[in-house]
Amino acid sequence: MITSVQNERVKEFAKLQMKKYRDKMHQFIIEGEHLVEEALKHGEVVEFFSLEERENATQVSSEVMKKLSGLTTPPTVLAVCKMMDSREIKGNVLLLDGLQDPGNLGTIIRSAVAFGIDTIVASFHTVDVYNTKVLRSSEGMLFRMNYIVTDIRDFIKSKEQEMTFYTTDVLEGTSLKEVKVKKPFGLIVGNEGAGVSDEVSQYAHEKIHISMNPACESLNVAMATSILLHHFYE
Amino acid sequence: MITSVQNERVKEFAKLQMKKYRDKMHQFIIEGEHLVEEALKHGEVVEFFSLEERENATQVSSEVMKKLSGLTTPPTVLAVCKMMDSREIKGNVLLLDGLQDPGNLGTIIRSAVAFGIDTIVASFHTVDVYNTKVLRSSEGMLFRMNYIVTDIRDFIKSKEQEMTFYTTDVLEGTSLKEVKVKKPFGLIVGNEGAGVSDEVSQYAHEKIHISMNPACESLNVAMATSILLHHFYE
Repeated sequence: MITSVQNERVKEFAKLQMKKYRDKMHQFIIEGEHLVEEALKHGEVVEFFSLEERENATQVSSEVMKKLSGLTTPPTVLAVCKMMDSREIKGNVLLLDGLQDPGNLGTIIRSAVAFGIDTIVASFHTVDVYNTKVLRSSEGMLFRMNYIVTDIRDFIKSKEQEMTFYTTDVLEGTSLKEVKVKKPFGLIVGNEGAGVSDEVSQYAHEKIHISMNPACESLNVAMATSILLHHFYE
Repeated sequence: MITSVQNERVKEFAKLQMKKYRDKMHQFIIEGEHLVEEALKHGEVVEFFSLEERENATQVSSEVMKKLSGLTTPPTVLAVCKMMDSREIKGNVLLLDGLQDPGNLGTIIRSAVAFGIDTIVASFHTVDVYNTKVLRSSEGMLFRMNYIVTDIRDFIKSKEQEMTFYTTDVLEGTSLKEVKVKKPFGLIVGNEGAGVSDEVSQYAHEKIHISMNPACESLNVAMATSILLHHFYE
């Protein structure tokens, strides 16, 4: 049992609350029973910590758990996981152009798994997927998604012969209910405030808009993405 | 300019961070430029507070703003509003059976406005709509929604001759894409963990499920609701 917050391993792992160290060590932390369960099933766990005695777990004191945790109320279990290597793309892709809100990214991952997306491709300026809040709102679904961070313009250019790219637009484009989906597709969604950037949307084959009450300025991006993914799924 | 947190009006309004006082005083607080703007346009503002000198605003010190605010980082503007009286129902209704997460309720209100819902009817055990987090994630759209809190079973029973009630079910029911919507409708969605309760769903005319990847347990309730509302909107 580890009771000292000065323990070398604890000190090292606690740094994983910062993106810089996650990227350097190629590891991240997940917290809580449900996420740890998903990680043990679908992820690669480096070390599993628990307040209580448990099989395959390193038992720690509540001070140590607090030191490792990024939450105000530390969990009873927590795991350090290896970042997953991305694999070859084998189906439909969701592209994220600068999404900023962790909760939005998490729920989008969950909807992407629900609607059979093979791979998520995120731009460099998208919120870090290994952020605690993202992982929590994804309900652990990140372990079931092929996730790639890259320059999405280069990605689209390299794939434009083999995939059909769709983007969203608040004002113009085909109404979603009229869209005939050609597969494999790449669906591009954008930032909470600014939408998809012009540099990216110019490469799309078709623009789509979701018809709505004109009094309403816009939908939350996670809602819009879920509606689109549901339409694109059969 | 008010600089003292001991000011009687400030002390009274600060209590509005608690549901008990909101219900008693029939008032609530909204925070930040965008929400205050929506309130001034579509709501009924009792008093408007600002850190800077502004037309129609009571100027306050940052200590007073902090006392009034429910946020870790207090806003530059804040307003006390009157709770809106509900009006007669004139169209389609969204029913909420025990929704608990403030962020989910806020985004659902936003999607409901976007997809032309006339009235939201929430059960007594639904999270309080005047909670700061709900108001923030609704992006001020609550001011454009007729919102009623009542016993939803009694509501359904009183309307079952004039409206068609649909409910969601993870396992059974008509696939959403096959649903032919009869208007006016009442769409019932449930709690994050438990879904729609049996006591409520038994009164629905039709059950709907959203087809998805069998590997995925469920969608976030706000995502599912947005997908349903989009389908029900034309």
